Amino acid sequence: MTASSPRPPLFPTPRTTPTRKPQRYTNDREALYDILDSALYCHVGLVLNGSPVVLPTAHGRDGDALYLHGSTGSGNLRAAAAGTDLCVTASLLDGIVYARSLNNHSMNYRSAVVHGRAVPVTDEERKTHALRVLSEHLAPGSWNYARVPDRKELAATQVLALDLAEASVKTRTGGPSLDVADRDAHTTWAGVLPMRTVFGAPVPADYVPEGITVPEHVSARASGPATGRTVRPPS
Amino acid sequence: MTASSPRPPLFPTPRTTPTRKPQRYTNDREALYDILDSALYCHVGLVLNGSPVVLPTAHGRDGDALYLHGSTGSGNLRAAAAGTDLCVTASLLDGIVYARSLNNHSMNYRSAVVHGRAVPVTDEERKTHALRVLSEHLAPGSWNYARVPDRKELAATQVLALDLAEASVKTRTGGPSLDVADRDAHTTWAGVLPMRTVFGAPVPADYVPEGITVPEHVSARASGPATGRTVRPPS
Repeated sequence: MTASSPRPPLFPTPRTTPTRKPQRYTNDREALYDILDSALYCHVGLVLNGSPVVLPTAHGRDGDALYLHGSTGSGNLRAAAAGTDLCVTASLLDGIVYARSLNNHSMNYRSAVVHGRAVPVTDEERKTHALRVLSEHLAPGSWNYARVPDRKELAATQVLALDLAEASVKTRTGGPSLDVADRDAHTTWAGVLPMRTVFGAPVPADYVPEGITVPEHVSARASGPATGRTVRPPS
Repeated sequence: MTASSPRPPLFPTPRTTPTRKPQRYTNDREALYDILDSALYCHVGLVLNGSPVVLPTAHGRDGDALYLHGSTGSGNLRAAAAGTDLCVTASLLDGIVYARSLNNHSMNYRSAVVHGRAVPVTDEERKTHALRVLSEHLAPGSWNYARVPDRKELAATQVLALDLAEASVKTRTGGPSLDVADRDAHTTWAGVLPMRTVFGAPVPADYVPEGITVPEHVSARASGPATGRTVRPPS
């Protein structure tokens, strides 16, 4: 499944059917893509020795394939590669919602929750492509600038693909709710304190000689919004 | 257990013993507190109908009690209240690490992973205190400004307490690693692109009359770093 053959809207399953506040959910697949592409990282949940484990990790998306990667030495990744159920959640916090009552205080956010089992990507060409997708998500431009993985590095890296077949998307936007009880409290302020994540100025490594310019793919990002790539890398 | 009776460093358990990169882990309890207090929200993982579920949620800490809350109508919260194993993860991304090789590209981050079973907070006084702790974490100052929860709102809110007994703390800081193979690539830039989350200017709700000033507890936060409270509210 590639980006050129778009799939239908997200189909609700028992795991993705909202039990509360259905107005905050959408089955729009583009909204799912947007959140996954905007979030620089995600949280992966799985069950290990009977207990839930939730770990932050990098991701990258190409069409309906969500790629994850890590060391072949990671126990969590090994369990994921063996086909245990995963839950991958990407969340973006957009603002604090101050209401007239504490009970209506809230957050504005966008979150995507993906359920499924991942498949190891072992074919060398596809694995390299997946690593490029992961790289272009977190550090767009680096693939054409830095040294690409060699055979040994490739072998030490576990790459997993998760099909975006089962997912839910939940968002909250807008101002604070208002209860009848608080409607006449005319002197009380309520509103939203928006928030955003931004990059600062690049800090060179101590081993980089003086006079080496910060490359365009890094400098262009500096002081701008800190999001993942929104432009798909060439296949 | 309160803030005035500090506990010993984090004790490793099978769930919290690092299997890789032990240098990135610390058993410093203060580091755990710092991450939980700085992160505006966390991700809660649990097993529901046999599958892992990971959801973003608000939290608040008082001493070694981590409080979570939500609607009594939430199925996830009901499962958590019934004593199923939880994994609560708070993550802060501090920068993108650009290395000379793709393989050494990384992220600077701080993450705390807490394991345990939560206990419902039902005593009205303690429940109100816990909600105040949650409120002071996300919207410090609101408790003394907005209308506090009434009996009905309190009854519709499920509050859980998780003891910070079993946790792991992992951080990465500093510049990119350098392999021998890339040491002599003198013309290649490498370094860190730092990132931070900031609040913007407050946006009043459409029902707030003109002329109502943004209260100090909101305006003081505007345009500053977007973190949770670092000062503990009065008990």
